[in-house]
Amino acid sequence: MQHTKPRVIIVGAGFAGIFAARELAGGPCEVLIIDRNNAHTFMPLLYQVATAAVESEHIAAPVRGIIRALGRRAANLDFLMAEVQAVDLAQRVLTAEGQDGNILRLPYDYLLLAPGSVTNTFGVPGADAHAYSLKNLEEAVRLRNHILRSFEAAAWTANPAERLNRLCFIVVGGGPTGVELAGAMAELMAGALKRDFPRLGLDRPCVTLLEAGDDLLPGFPDSLRAYARKKLTALGVDVRVNAQVSSVGPQGVELKDGASLHAATTVWTAGVKGEPLAARLGMPQAPNGQLLARPSLQSPEHDQIFLAGDICRADHQGRPLPMFAPPAIQEGRHAAHNILRLLRKQEVRPFRYLDKGMMATIGKRAAVARLGPLKLKGLPAWLLWLAIHLAYLIGFRNRLFVLANWAVDYFLSERAVRLITRRNPLE
Amino acid sequence: MQHTKPRVIIVGAGFAGIFAARELAGGPCEVLIIDRNNAHTFMPLLYQVATAAVESEHIAAPVRGIIRALGRRAANLDFLMAEVQAVDLAQRVLTAEGQDGNILRLPYDYLLLAPGSVTNTFGVPGADAHAYSLKNLEEAVRLRNHILRSFEAAAWTANPAERLNRLCFIVVGGGPTGVELAGAMAELMAGALKRDFPRLGLDRPCVTLLEAGDDLLPGFPDSLRAYARKKLTALGVDVRVNAQVSSVGPQGVELKDGASLHAATTVWTAGVKGEPLAARLGMPQAPNGQLLARPSLQSPEHDQIFLAGDICRADHQGRPLPMFAPPAIQEGRHAAHNILRLLRKQEVRPFRYLDKGMMATIGKRAAVARLGPLKLKGLPAWLLWLAIHLAYLIGFRNRLFVLANWAVDYFLSERAVRLITRRNPLE
Repeated sequence: MQHTKPRVIIVGAGFAGIFAARELAGGPCEVLIIDRNNAHTFMPLLYQVATAAVESEHIAAPVRGIIRALGRRAANLDFLMAEVQAVDLAQRVLTAEGQDGNILRLPYDYLLLAPGSVTNTFGVPGADAHAYSLKNLEEAVRLRNHILRSFEAAAWTANPAERLNRLCFIVVGGGPTGVELAGAMAELMAGALKRDFPRLGLDRPCVTLLEAGDDLLPGFPDSLRAYARKKLTALGVDVRVNAQVSSVGPQGVELKDGASLHAATTVWTAGVKGEPLAARLGMPQAPNGQLLARPSLQSPEHDQIFLAGDICRADHQGRPLPMFAPPAIQEGRHAAHNILRLLRKQEVRPFRYLDKGMMATIGKRAAVARLGPLKLKGLPAWLLWLAIHLAYLIGFRNRLFVLANWAVDYFLSERAVRLITRRNPLE
Repeated sequence: MQHTKPRVIIVGAGFAGIFAARELAGGPCEVLIIDRNNAHTFMPLLYQVATAAVESEHIAAPVRGIIRALGRRAANLDFLMAEVQAVDLAQRVLTAEGQDGNILRLPYDYLLLAPGSVTNTFGVPGADAHAYSLKNLEEAVRLRNHILRSFEAAAWTANPAERLNRLCFIVVGGGPTGVELAGAMAELMAGALKRDFPRLGLDRPCVTLLEAGDDLLPGFPDSLRAYARKKLTALGVDVRVNAQVSSVGPQGVELKDGASLHAATTVWTAGVKGEPLAARLGMPQAPNGQLLARPSLQSPEHDQIFLAGDICRADHQGRPLPMFAPPAIQEGRHAAHNILRLLRKQEVRPFRYLDKGMMATIGKRAAVARLGPLKLKGLPAWLLWLAIHLAYLIGFRNRLFVLANWAVDYFLSERAVRLITRRNPLE
């Protein structure tokens, strides 16, 4: 069966890969989705996993479940849980390592590369070693464990300076992820953790948000940026702009202006770069590790290779698109449509990004959103943020459970997932 | 404040420790609960975590949340997340390693030891190395990951014998844990996994349950044991009694009668022994690692040390009590009451186990239960099992979410938590 129809391989089950697969379901091709995880992760809510608000399982949707939910027309879709090792561009064969070291050689007719991105610390000394990152489920759970463990340690630390250090939290990067994480962390400290640790006498959260540029949320309208700054400050976040980090250590960060900030937890949200797999493919790359794409999203030298999501350097109005979910979704769909056109011997079409807007949440009833020319803030923006995030979360059950968690958080200021998971030495 | 009132240290936040702490809340003492985890685990549902039915977070209740839920009267309760290292019986000082290697020396007036139990493989060759265990959350998640990863591997295994091996599952031990796990595993294979892997053509589950004795569920009335055997067989479980395992390897087990069984997954539920901490205390031990107790649950040589839960060798009608939740709960409460009596200069009282019965679930609408002289099976026993497990699960939210998962499982034969989590190399 795999030999009667052309085979499309999709690398990556993120937004780009999953939305591409949905378009290809029922098409005149066999489609194979490859990912190192067996589930699609809803990355916009990773900060909520890190701040004990939602279960990691609830923002992950098993890929086989996504395929199954498409019904009979998805009979041409299959999944392989494996680590992509290399692509032989001349032979059109992808090599992947499956479970137990099983090496699979997979010929393709079309290849859609959507492996995503990883954190970029731009070579700042100590950042890779000491700063936490928030780019996948494991990193989010690791950060949650570290936050909760730091508080457990602080409760039994006699030295006041050491104790304070364990209770403090630095976020590097004032983009949407940094703003959302800093706000959620301040609310966590002022709510559930304050009540869990009555003897620590937590008066106010110790959260610092550092932005190297001159304001938070670059790309947002000025009035929304001012609102975000004001709201974060009201939550107890120490917002510092024009603050460039020169080094990160286990107990805090040094700034370029000579200042030192002390905290047991530093999270780096200040940059992303293309997934390292891209560098091994021998295809033209941008300096940030993205792969260059033609307007059709094809690789410059390979008609049968398409790029989508964070790995894809696509421009919009002369500037690179941000590495957010909406471009990834649109690129994934467009690449799939172009593959279908090639399968039908039609011409590919250029990708055009439809800018529906951008949004970020800060805390309860506080968010900012730009919808085309419309600017929203406060409660309306927050409700819109909730609705859109629930809509794009995959799976009815995940939506229900996340909504239930949000309700508990909203009405009781409670964070449900205050569980420290242990490393498994045997795995 | 810790010096004005006598201090009671409780080691272990399992059933015994938590139920003891609840009795001591508001008492004339300072109470410190110590556990290596920050949460109480509802162990009777570990097999449901292992079979992708419930989230690990939903059967864990953070200890600080349990204390908080007791309200103002729990102001004398505190928690320390640490690994107990030693107890100086003469000086009455407990030594524990907190977070970041912080060593704490904690004097006590009374000590309640309830550290629980670990798997006992009785020296069967290969069992420790190759069999999975189900005694804590990490082990349950590790088993879930292994099951799901084996199916992902099988989907891409060309050799039929190898493929079948990856799909097969052996449970050693026909007690309640073994019966519940085998039934849940058969339902998982016949439901969610069969639909997730349509190309594997899974006709019937490949689950074998091995019991060394002559019937399943020792201690249950014969009619219920026969029902359990019949129901498991109907679910597709190959039930073998008088089957003694002589060795365990990575691809299956060898039996004493010379037979070989092939499976990529073997789970050992055939025995438990006292938590290894007990051996380091220099107190009288039973051969299975339990600590001997006086009828008052005091240690034979130390009036101020009490024992409760799986670590405590207490007898009922001349036989050792099984290492189940009900004895642990009753012992924890009784030990707490005796500590309160000593604090009030009263005499301790002997522990008497009130045998309310025992139960095990097999699958949908199928369970067995003995309530005093009453025997239940099928739907009534299953409903009772659901009600009692929900009642003892700690936390309203956990109950709600577990119930929601059960409903999805019941009506859709769906298993929600089919997520393979990754080991975190940095943690």
